Amino acid sequence: MTERIAIIDLGSNSARLIVMHIYANGAYNLVYHQKDPVRLSEGMSSEHLLQPGAMERAIATMQVFAHMCNLFNVDRVLAVATAAVRNARNGGDFVREVEKRTGITLEVISGDTEALLGYIGVINTIAVNDAVLFDLGGGSTELTLVRNSKPEKMISLPFGAVYLTEKFQTADRVTEGQLADLRKFVSEQLAQVPWLKKLALPIVGIGGTARNIAKMDQKRKNYPFNKVHNYRLGRLSFDELWRALMVTSLGQRRKFPGLSTERADIIVAGSTIVKGLFDVTLGTHLIISGCGVREGLFWRDYLSRNGGSQTIDDILMHSTDNMLRFYKGDINHCHQVARLALSMFDGWQELHNLDDRSRKLLHVASLLHDIGITINYYDHPRHSAYLVENARLFGLTHREQMLTAVIAGWHNGPTKFVRNRIYGEFFDEIDWQTAKKLSLILAIAESLDTTQMQLIKSVGASLEDGNAILDLQGTQASVERQSLERMVRWFRKEMNTELIVK
Amino acid sequence: MTERIAIIDLGSNSARLIVMHIYANGAYNLVYHQKDPVRLSEGMSSEHLLQPGAMERAIATMQVFAHMCNLFNVDRVLAVATAAVRNARNGGDFVREVEKRTGITLEVISGDTEALLGYIGVINTIAVNDAVLFDLGGGSTELTLVRNSKPEKMISLPFGAVYLTEKFQTADRVTEGQLADLRKFVSEQLAQVPWLKKLALPIVGIGGTARNIAKMDQKRKNYPFNKVHNYRLGRLSFDELWRALMVTSLGQRRKFPGLSTERADIIVAGSTIVKGLFDVTLGTHLIISGCGVREGLFWRDYLSRNGGSQTIDDILMHSTDNMLRFYKGDINHCHQVARLALSMFDGWQELHNLDDRSRKLLHVASLLHDIGITINYYDHPRHSAYLVENARLFGLTHREQMLTAVIAGWHNGPTKFVRNRIYGEFFDEIDWQTAKKLSLILAIAESLDTTQMQLIKSVGASLEDGNAILDLQGTQASVERQSLERMVRWFRKEMNTELIVK
Repeated sequence: MTERIAIIDLGSNSARLIVMHIYANGAYNLVYHQKDPVRLSEGMSSEHLLQPGAMERAIATMQVFAHMCNLFNVDRVLAVATAAVRNARNGGDFVREVEKRTGITLEVISGDTEALLGYIGVINTIAVNDAVLFDLGGGSTELTLVRNSKPEKMISLPFGAVYLTEKFQTADRVTEGQLADLRKFVSEQLAQVPWLKKLALPIVGIGGTARNIAKMDQKRKNYPFNKVHNYRLGRLSFDELWRALMVTSLGQRRKFPGLSTERADIIVAGSTIVKGLFDVTLGTHLIISGCGVREGLFWRDYLSRNGGSQTIDDILMHSTDNMLRFYKGDINHCHQVARLALSMFDGWQELHNLDDRSRKLLHVASLLHDIGITINYYDHPRHSAYLVENARLFGLTHREQMLTAVIAGWHNGPTKFVRNRIYGEFFDEIDWQTAKKLSLILAIAESLDTTQMQLIKSVGASLEDGNAILDLQGTQASVERQSLERMVRWFRKEMNTELIVK
Repeated sequence: MTERIAIIDLGSNSARLIVMHIYANGAYNLVYHQKDPVRLSEGMSSEHLLQPGAMERAIATMQVFAHMCNLFNVDRVLAVATAAVRNARNGGDFVREVEKRTGITLEVISGDTEALLGYIGVINTIAVNDAVLFDLGGGSTELTLVRNSKPEKMISLPFGAVYLTEKFQTADRVTEGQLADLRKFVSEQLAQVPWLKKLALPIVGIGGTARNIAKMDQKRKNYPFNKVHNYRLGRLSFDELWRALMVTSLGQRRKFPGLSTERADIIVAGSTIVKGLFDVTLGTHLIISGCGVREGLFWRDYLSRNGGSQTIDDILMHSTDNMLRFYKGDINHCHQVARLALSMFDGWQELHNLDDRSRKLLHVASLLHDIGITINYYDHPRHSAYLVENARLFGLTHREQMLTAVIAGWHNGPTKFVRNRIYGEFFDEIDWQTAKKLSLILAIAESLDTTQMQLIKSVGASLEDGNAILDLQGTQASVERQSLERMVRWFRKEMNTELIVK
């Protein structure tokens, strides 16, 4: 019934293990993550040979991963190795040695497969139609042009952050000459990919370099939300950060806010590749993806066994549904509340004047309004807000996720809890008004299913003579009618309109 | 394997339903709560007859409750009726009518049983050795003298908030004469309970009146934590609140901050009973219990089937264990981390100079440090803090629960997340220092089981020549030794002492 899948990704710079748990009802969740900065490609640039020390480090890490898989009672292991092993003349021997000593069978994937898996990881977790994706690893960089959410072009370039650091000796402070050589190399290489030129699209970045760029930028801006996935930064911010990095020594970078110590040597080369991409594509802005090859492996596996394609049509509704299953609430009640809320949203369109995107947020908030019960029944709207804010929901910007959290958190009426919190950093007054209106609609929908028995089958919402009409269809539902009474006053205050219940 | 138990409590003022879910691993959780202000005792004071309108309201509510039990697939229903039914001459007819029309069999419990169940609800959720408990309902007030955590004396007095409101007509503004009569009645009644006199103990209050006193006091003080259970207020605060209530009209009380509208009429009588208790017992302070008869019914049932007594020896460790099971983490890892942390706490006693209570908090934080993984693996220490802060942990003050949350939240090192939050309202500088020291010890313990494989079996912690010595017993554990290195600097900074690992 339940299943645990381990996914291992042995890259040129780091090795990672994630464990995904799939529950009996189909919900899935990441339950473990471990990372080791193996630096497998160390010293291999000229001879294309994995070095003995690097191989021993990698095997020791794989042994730990194998133990962890055992400990977690993993059912299946999906393990891949990328550029370092792929390009090494002794890669085959290494793979056999890993298998012999750890029992883990590494699949050495091609550059194209690596690009495809990165694409699957991104497209199922970030809402972009047209973009350039890059997956910047230690030994290679995969590029994908996405048009209409489909991978139109793909290429794997045989250089990454570790490789270029060794080639141009940029581990410590760089001279102007070194930097010029590095930049020249990168731009010449990228110039050989004709379809990159002047795309003027968003750039989506996967991998440790991209994640660290986000973390450094967040530190500079004192960003109040500790989340990298779907973080966005503009060209100006990136350039400023890049320039700041280029004039630092290794020692200074080890203390650079947001940069992880083990990446201090390779960030110069890594971020210069991103700089080159910005330049050649005329990228509009950079979006960081926390999901890449590992998540791509998971989705490919999960979706194929659920009979679908490699991509999910509606990532927001899919991830919402996953959360709803995961927190095992009263699914009928949540769907009923969502149906009623959307009916009212549609019927009162001219009253609230909110757009389709707001409708989406209301839909998600309605489905998830009760998940906080898991934490504590008492005060559960506040807990629902916390869970929505921190849930693995995909297809929302950070600000939209916060808005959804507030709407869910106010499903019994606005409370002060949110005012002190980080929400204030994301919202302007219009956002607060939107949150209030949507939470009012959600609260009415919730009150119409107070008993969770779906006594009110449906509602007709309309506007007549300046009043909002709510026509209830269903059996008696005296409890519901009673709790609806509390809403009339709130409605008048918020919407400046009388609510008339039929 | 799993089981759902519904508990119904039909009081004189309100009817309540809770649903408890017991999981296969023994963890339990409240999954539903519904309340209806039935006011069953309305109009019965003189004739001792339940009135037709009140009975119909109660039966309608019981029908809804029966539906809910059905919807929740409840396995068993424990339903009790208290004073109103117990004292009514037509109580038996009413019970039969309820059974006929709803299928719910109400057990009419005696005043002594009611007092005992309230005691069980309190003693398993609040750490008090000696106290006076009161359970103030609509139609009766149960008093229990607790000594050494045992119920030494019990009595059920045949008046409550609804009864006295009707008897002294105190629903709206009261005259000085009415108030004097009411107070005289209460003090005379209490004077007939000889063991109450001058106990000079804490008073623990159960029931809606007590909960509303807490809520009103919290509003006055702008208390930053939305939790009533185990909230404490002193004599001065209570008297001030009581005096403020005595001079209000019903309309004013309907808007009184923290007071629920449906209780606006009976709060004068209700809080005057509390006032009388304070006076006769010379109570030191008032502790509010959110748990009472309903929880008492649950515990009595749950504990009897688990072969024990009606009370739990160590409510803090029991509720911690329940949380740990509920969030289904890696139990071996958590217990291992707790063992290691406590060894270090004990071995370095002279270094940190923290007391036994701090040791308890460290123990709980160690066991629960990973529960946040449920919410999101990434940033899970922060989520653990949130869950600990809001968990149904018993035996901690609110401040201690916050401290435990911060310690758990810092198990990978101190982060800023807590500084902005409500913790600052509870902690002084000493508390922050305690949190830092304890989280450092927890972080070391966590790093000693990085692989979660218990490779380090145990540690010897001692002090030698002004250094802190950590003697590791176990197999290689290279990953653990590596992550321990990160801790040495933190240790030096926090403890002003060198950490030497052997």
